[in-house]
Amino acid sequence: MSKNLGNNTIFFEKGPSIISSASVVGKMEGDGPLSNFFDMVENDQYFGQSTWEKAESELCKRTVNTALKKANLSFSDIDFAVSGDLLNQCIGSTFGMRDSDTAYLGIFGACSTMAEGLFISSVLVDSGAANYVISSSGSHFCSSERQFRQPLEYGGQRPQTSQWTVTGGGSIILGKNASPPYITHATVGKIIDKNITDTNNMGSAMAPAFCDTILSHFKATNRSVDYYDLIVSGDLGYVGSMIAKDLLKENGLDISKKYNDCGLMIFDRQKQDVHSGGSGCGCGASVLSGYILHQMREKKLNKVLFVATGALMSQTSSFQGESIPSVAHAIAIEN
Amino acid sequence: MSKNLGNNTIFFEKGPSIISSASVVGKMEGDGPLSNFFDMVENDQYFGQSTWEKAESELCKRTVNTALKKANLSFSDIDFAVSGDLLNQCIGSTFGMRDSDTAYLGIFGACSTMAEGLFISSVLVDSGAANYVISSSGSHFCSSERQFRQPLEYGGQRPQTSQWTVTGGGSIILGKNASPPYITHATVGKIIDKNITDTNNMGSAMAPAFCDTILSHFKATNRSVDYYDLIVSGDLGYVGSMIAKDLLKENGLDISKKYNDCGLMIFDRQKQDVHSGGSGCGCGASVLSGYILHQMREKKLNKVLFVATGALMSQTSSFQGESIPSVAHAIAIEN
Repeated sequence: MSKNLGNNTIFFEKGPSIISSASVVGKMEGDGPLSNFFDMVENDQYFGQSTWEKAESELCKRTVNTALKKANLSFSDIDFAVSGDLLNQCIGSTFGMRDSDTAYLGIFGACSTMAEGLFISSVLVDSGAANYVISSSGSHFCSSERQFRQPLEYGGQRPQTSQWTVTGGGSIILGKNASPPYITHATVGKIIDKNITDTNNMGSAMAPAFCDTILSHFKATNRSVDYYDLIVSGDLGYVGSMIAKDLLKENGLDISKKYNDCGLMIFDRQKQDVHSGGSGCGCGASVLSGYILHQMREKKLNKVLFVATGALMSQTSSFQGESIPSVAHAIAIEN
Repeated sequence: MSKNLGNNTIFFEKGPSIISSASVVGKMEGDGPLSNFFDMVENDQYFGQSTWEKAESELCKRTVNTALKKANLSFSDIDFAVSGDLLNQCIGSTFGMRDSDTAYLGIFGACSTMAEGLFISSVLVDSGAANYVISSSGSHFCSSERQFRQPLEYGGQRPQTSQWTVTGGGSIILGKNASPPYITHATVGKIIDKNITDTNNMGSAMAPAFCDTILSHFKATNRSVDYYDLIVSGDLGYVGSMIAKDLLKENGLDISKKYNDCGLMIFDRQKQDVHSGGSGCGCGASVLSGYILHQMREKKLNKVLFVATGALMSQTSSFQGESIPSVAHAIAIEN
């Protein structure tokens, strides 16, 4: 059974177990500092397909298949697949999963998708509805650029606040408590909109949502920052991370000693010229599924709070002058 | 606790209760046969906003606020909001819910969204994670036409197999078992793709997914068609409904005596010139939240299987020559 601790925070009494995780990334991510922790680095940006959107579906397919293989499971063992991405109507996921022959739940949380998927999967396992659930998310630089910004051929100049959409994805299989790491708590975020309208400055738009969720999580759990070995945001990037730390300090919470951001971890920001860092559904998903869970299995990290943030606007809403509503979900993972 | 009966079917032991439901529709839906069952008919297609997308968000806001009012609850009583729609990045829902100050889970299941939302909400309530969850979905004819088809001003001719996207939405609040109707079972669909590529013939693309879910549901529950007073598809329309009935007959299941389709119920197909009938996230959502649940409260219907179907393609995937993957989720609602 799950227990609601207030402040949108759920405690999973049985602690669904992370059975397996897999990450697949593109060439640029493979050239970054976390290179050794990904299961697969694909140098062909088309992933052997004819379009970037089909490449993104192929990426999704590879992450889930790799996670299944690592767990020695097949789709017939899986009760539910929970997946989502940034593409219109989430076609990265739906086309990636269409041959899975598994009950499918599509979700949309922009770059918060991996955390939302882990929350829904945890409830499914903890409630007794499922033995195994696979959740996945991914993104592709080229399909995102042409959908949200400009055709790549246009060669538009990127402002320093902008982030670089990660070509990558992650997939995690949850099951009844077998062995650590476990998911012990989740804090589900509210939509927070502080009237940021600049789509080249997503970190600023998402930072307040991150702070709201972090404050709710610590209030509900009575934990201190020191409890965790790592508090990691999905992809606030350099600008958003600075704002987030400042906002939390104003609220009496200093997370700086334990804090990092997947968007800062996946690239060498200066050398790889990605301005404010990485972003996209696949950023948090691949860093969690690759690096972080590897460190947890090695006991180099034992208590991690993974907080994926999402910017919930579309190109249409921005064209219509709207600001960027954001959300952040926190998942506590413990050995 | 929830119990997995196999065949992707969950039995909710405590049977989450439908506390309240609300439906809001546009003028054309208000002129249709179900007119008296909707909570609100808005004659202004802009819903007082400056764009159709903002109108869709306003529609979402009105359905959730009406459902809350009817239940004598406010957002502060609600643990989670689960919502989704057809617009790119689900902006109908995210902008509609951004002032709710409630933990938010965005979902994407195209026109199956209402059923997916009810399933996730049921698990949240049944698992103990939530006391109250609100789920909602909606669609708008004008925003859908311009996103998926052509600018309205173009006046393109619609083939007879095409369906008319409903301007409308529905919202349902679930809580711990207080009084009927209850949600007793859910069958979550797999993605089914039978290689239909014609986006003006969605009913044909979705009918096989409907059949797959129906067959799984009856296999898992050992129920017969006669058990239900009504088996209702979300929006297969005239063409899809005919195909679905035929496909099920080929599989030894005759549902024709108990079967109807929300897309056929919401419009007078001939008089209102909607060709194959209604469709869109808001079709099943408003017919369920309005007409069907009204009949259940009046005990004119006591056992209903609501099966919402979704076509999971995007404009991009269709432009790239892809077929239409579909999904259908079944929710058993009983007094």
